[in-house]
Amino acid sequence: MANFDGPGFAMVDGYWIQTKAIDVESSTDISPYLSRLLEDCVWNGNRAIVFDLYWDVTKSADAKSEWRLSSVKLSTKNLCLFLRLPNPFTDNLKDLYRFFASKFVTFVGVQIQEDLVLLKENHGIVIRSSLEIGKLAAKARGTPIVEFLGTRELAHKILWYDMSRLDSIQSKWDEAGGNDRLEAAAIEGWLIYSVYDQLQQ
Amino acid sequence: MANFDGPGFAMVDGYWIQTKAIDVESSTDISPYLSRLLEDCVWNGNRAIVFDLYWDVTKSADAKSEWRLSSVKLSTKNLCLFLRLPNPFTDNLKDLYRFFASKFVTFVGVQIQEDLVLLKENHGIVIRSSLEIGKLAAKARGTPIVEFLGTRELAHKILWYDMSRLDSIQSKWDEAGGNDRLEAAAIEGWLIYSVYDQLQQ
Amino acid sequence: MANFDGPGFAMVDGYWIQTKAIDVESSTDISPYLSRLLEDCVWNGNRAIVFDLYWDVTKSADAKSEWRLSSVKLSTKNLCLFLRLPNPFTDNLKDLYRFFASKFVTFVGVQIQEDLVLLKENHGIVIRSSLEIGKLAAKARGTPIVEFLGTRELAHKILWYDMSRLDSIQSKWDEAGGNDRLEAAAIEGWLIYSVYDQLQQ
Amino acid sequence: MANFDGPGFAMVDGYWIQTKAIDVESSTDISPYLSRLLEDCVWNGNRAIVFDLYWDVTKSADAKSEWRLSSVKLSTKNLCLFLRLPNPFTDNLKDLYRFFASKFVTFVGVQIQEDLVLLKENHGIVIRSSLEIGKLAAKARGTPIVEFLGTRELAHKILWYDMSRLDSIQSKWDEAGGNDRLEAAAIEGWLIYSVYDQLQQ
Amino acid sequence: MANFDGPGFAMVDGYWIQTKAIDVESSTDISPYLSRLLEDCVWNGNRAIVFDLYWDVTKSADAKSEWRLSSVKLSTKNLCLFLRLPNPFTDNLKDLYRFFASKFVTFVGVQIQEDLVLLKENHGIVIRSSLEIGKLAAKARGTPIVEFLGTRELAHKILWYDMSRLDSIQSKWDEAGGNDRLEAAAIEGWLIYSVYDQLQQ
Amino acid sequence: MANFDGPGFAMVDGYWIQTKAIDVESSTDISPYLSRLLEDCVWNGNRAIVFDLYWDVTKSADAKSEWRLSSVKLSTKNLCLFLRLPNPFTDNLKDLYRFFASKFVTFVGVQIQEDLVLLKENHGIVIRSSLEIGKLAAKARGTPIVEFLGTRELAHKILWYDMSRLDSIQSKWDEAGGNDRLEAAAIEGWLIYSVYDQLQQ
Repeated sequence: MANFDGPGFAMVDGYWIQTKAIDVESSTDISPYLSRLLEDCVWNGNRAIVFDLYWDVTKSADAKSEWRLSSVKLSTKNLCLFLRLPNPFTDNLKDLYRFFASKFVTFVGVQIQEDLVLLKENHGIVIRSSLEIGKLAAKARGTPIVEFLGTRELAHKILWYDMSRLDSIQSKWDEAGGNDRLEAAAIEGWLIYSVYDQLQQ
Repeated sequence: MANFDGPGFAMVDGYWIQTKAIDVESSTDISPYLSRLLEDCVWNGNRAIVFDLYWDVTKSADAKSEWRLSSVKLSTKNLCLFLRLPNPFTDNLKDLYRFFASKFVTFVGVQIQEDLVLLKENHGIVIRSSLEIGKLAAKARGTPIVEFLGTRELAHKILWYDMSRLDSIQSKWDEAGGNDRLEAAAIEGWLIYSVYDQLQQ
Repeated sequence: MANFDGPGFAMVDGYWIQTKAIDVESSTDISPYLSRLLEDCVWNGNRAIVFDLYWDVTKSADAKSEWRLSSVKLSTKNLCLFLRLPNPFTDNLKDLYRFFASKFVTFVGVQIQEDLVLLKENHGIVIRSSLEIGKLAAKARGTPIVEFLGTRELAHKILWYDMSRLDSIQSKWDEAGGNDRLEAAAIEGWLIYSVYDQLQQ
Repeated sequence: MANFDGPGFAMVDGYWIQTKAIDVESSTDISPYLSRLLEDCVWNGNRAIVFDLYWDVTKSADAKSEWRLSSVKLSTKNLCLFLRLPNPFTDNLKDLYRFFASKFVTFVGVQIQEDLVLLKENHGIVIRSSLEIGKLAAKARGTPIVEFLGTRELAHKILWYDMSRLDSIQSKWDEAGGNDRLEAAAIEGWLIYSVYDQLQQ
Repeated sequence: MANFDGPGFAMVDGYWIQTKAIDVESSTDISPYLSRLLEDCVWNGNRAIVFDLYWDVTKSADAKSEWRLSSVKLSTKNLCLFLRLPNPFTDNLKDLYRFFASKFVTFVGVQIQEDLVLLKENHGIVIRSSLEIGKLAAKARGTPIVEFLGTRELAHKILWYDMSRLDSIQSKWDEAGGNDRLEAAAIEGWLIYSVYDQLQQ
Repeated sequence: MANFDGPGFAMVDGYWIQTKAIDVESSTDISPYLSRLLEDCVWNGNRAIVFDLYWDVTKSADAKSEWRLSSVKLSTKNLCLFLRLPNPFTDNLKDLYRFFASKFVTFVGVQIQEDLVLLKENHGIVIRSSLEIGKLAAKARGTPIVEFLGTRELAHKILWYDMSRLDSIQSKWDEAGGNDRLEAAAIEGWLIYSVYDQLQQ
């Protein structure tokens, strides 16, 4: 069974997020972890999985810039999975392709428009059920500006939580260690999950 | 005549759905089953056929990801047909092409936008009369969020049925057997059919 | 002069539709029939011609699916013309190209969006003056759902006629003979014509 | 100076339209006639020129259908110019290209969407200042249906003139002689001009 | 320093526009004139530069029609610059490219949609800050028709000035001499500038 | 650590902006400066970074015009960074690519639509989180015109500050020295930052 045995982090309201970070290689089986996420969001989570994508740019032989997906963060109510992807993609990543194409869940994200285009154009990854949370928040609250905000600002406007821990890590991102970066990813996932939860009422 | 002699399942309100699962080969004649569905939805069903598509990803020779349609689920008020498609497509699938292009019925689905694009780009399948039920529900009920929900969440918001059987199967999808997966497909089809029915009033 | 000497059918309110079915070959002159339709819709019909397209799918040499137009139905207030087209198209079909491009009439149809794309992409046929009746009905009546309905459901919602004859033929479409199929086409044409007529008031 | 010495026709309210029909050859100078139209619409006409395009379809060597512009009708308040164009286009037609690209006038037409696309794709003709009169009428009058109507129906709905002369010619279009076809073109031009005039108030 | 030493013209309200017409050759330095315009519109003009484009059509070797930019008119509150461009473009026109891409000013025009496409497709010229004045006027005044009007009609509707001088020149455009054409360009620039000014209140 | 040791400028309300201009070469490490900006906008700035792009046009070998990014301005509440980019781009610019793709901040600009297209088409740079401030201002204030204005006019309409210093430099842009151009960039950045700040209330 998949153990989310990475660091755990307390959120500002005391809620505990359990994380797991994996450096995916050709022999890594990620499907048990994806199944754990699916299970958690079916029983505990409004069928929502918060996702974020991390891209890196490389110059190819013919001097044209190319974006490749370097990491993926997937969050549910209780869990946060962080996958560092190999370059180039190995066969076992088909599990991730199928997971992203699932209609059992809604993939919730912030400013995902360019991400969806890059996913399809550069890797042929298709997300069939996605939600741009800023657009929904703007419609639901009647505040046009939130459509354009990033996670921190959007969450601050909707939830009014104390953002100092996240600000602290992100303000010095280049110097942040692996654990701090994982904590920031977990906080962002939990924030967007909470915004989505709030907008349902 | 086409016998829907697969397992039958009781829905939460006691309604009985009769299923049929077919592994389609080059010699399989699927047209009698498509005709049964047409007959059922003409007499019993608001001319609506609920559909869902299951895709698989493979890597082609030149390392580019390709999506191919692996299964199709078609539901009417009383019936659920589950076709597992061959790879590559055989000639007899022309019946499915013609069926999807029919204007006698409306093909109702959830989050079908990417599906319609993939159908046309990868297989040249064209659905002329389709309805994205989330969009209709959002307009009809004035609740923007339902446009982005999957089957389970959308049905829960509109119908308030007990979803525990569906949650139970889908939470452990990888471990679910063929019968359970068929039951989940039948439940989803019946749920969307019921939502569509509800929105007509 | 063009004789519409095919079967005639009575509609539910007693109105009589005169039909003509033609298997078009290279030597067939269809222009007298198109002229009759034009004449009927100028004097008797709000300048509207209801149309429906029937497609067939074939696999070409390089295994890519191709849609070709196999039949066309054109209805006015009193007449219904059913053309079965040759494969490949012969020169005399230029009359049909010019007819479809006419601005003297409005070509009214149901769920015609994909049809117009397929017509242009696959055959270079251009319809300059077309009307998607579901979209108009939805706007005129303020009922969003009718935009997505097929002929039978749309007509039922707007006109409340008895649809049993049409349901009877279409529920067993594969077994229906040529005469019944012609009658169904005539009924559908007359229904849409009547909806269009209704929406003018 | 350009003489509009073709047939003159009386409209239903007694207004007189002077026409000129030209079979354009390589040596024909059409610019004096275009200048006359410009002059008439500057002094007498709200800077509007009503236009209509007549297309013919031919099959090219590689069996692909091609649309070529066969005739152009240009109407002002008092004049109607009918140009039958050569095939292929000769150099002197550059005057028509420049005329269509003029910003001194607004080219008003009915159902011109496909026409503008065909003009650009097939002939590289660009109209910079055009107006789809049905769209404007629908907005101005709040009647959605008029956006989809042809000249006769649109004019009838806005102006309530007697259309019997136009109906008479168009109902038997194939048998109509050159003079009658010219008269129909003149009537349509004057009708749309009058609708445009009416919508200004 | 750049002298606008061409003809000056009085507008209907007595306002004086100073013009300069230049036949641009490979050695012509147009940048002082562009700088003068920039200076005038920064101090005197709401940062608006009214522009109009004049195109010519030529047939290229492979018989495909090509549009090339033949002249450009740039107007500020007090000045009007008319550039006749060489064919083909020479290196010194880079100043015009950079000027058009400026974000210091807003380039205001009438019916500029096709112009912007032709500029980019045919010459790679990009205008980053442009305003279609008809669209703004329609929104600001609630009159849908003005979106489709040319300069003369739009200005007449908004300003109610006496247009007889402009009508006089444009009605006989082919016979108009260089000075009259320059005056018409100056009048049009000043009219649109005045409309833009009016819409700010 | 990155020192913003370039000229400092006082804004009209006395606020002090610290600048840094860098001529980027292959060995230049720009990441400390980007980190400083990130830090400033996290702690002091609503997570907004105001940006502006400066393009130059060159003619390539095959005589087709090409736009290349020549400079980038990035402003936060207190800082303004001005990067002059090498031609062609060197490897160290990957830091700028990654910075632009960040979702930690919102990149705020004026008239950025064409910029985003040129960035992607010509350099493969993708900005995932951007905001066109004119569009937001138009929606928030209900004044359609501001969507089309440049920085100076937009800021003047929203803030009513004294613009004479900016006008003074921009009116004579060609003659302005490096320091003045830097000051203008700093003023524009601070103006848009202030508008964004204002629109949040």
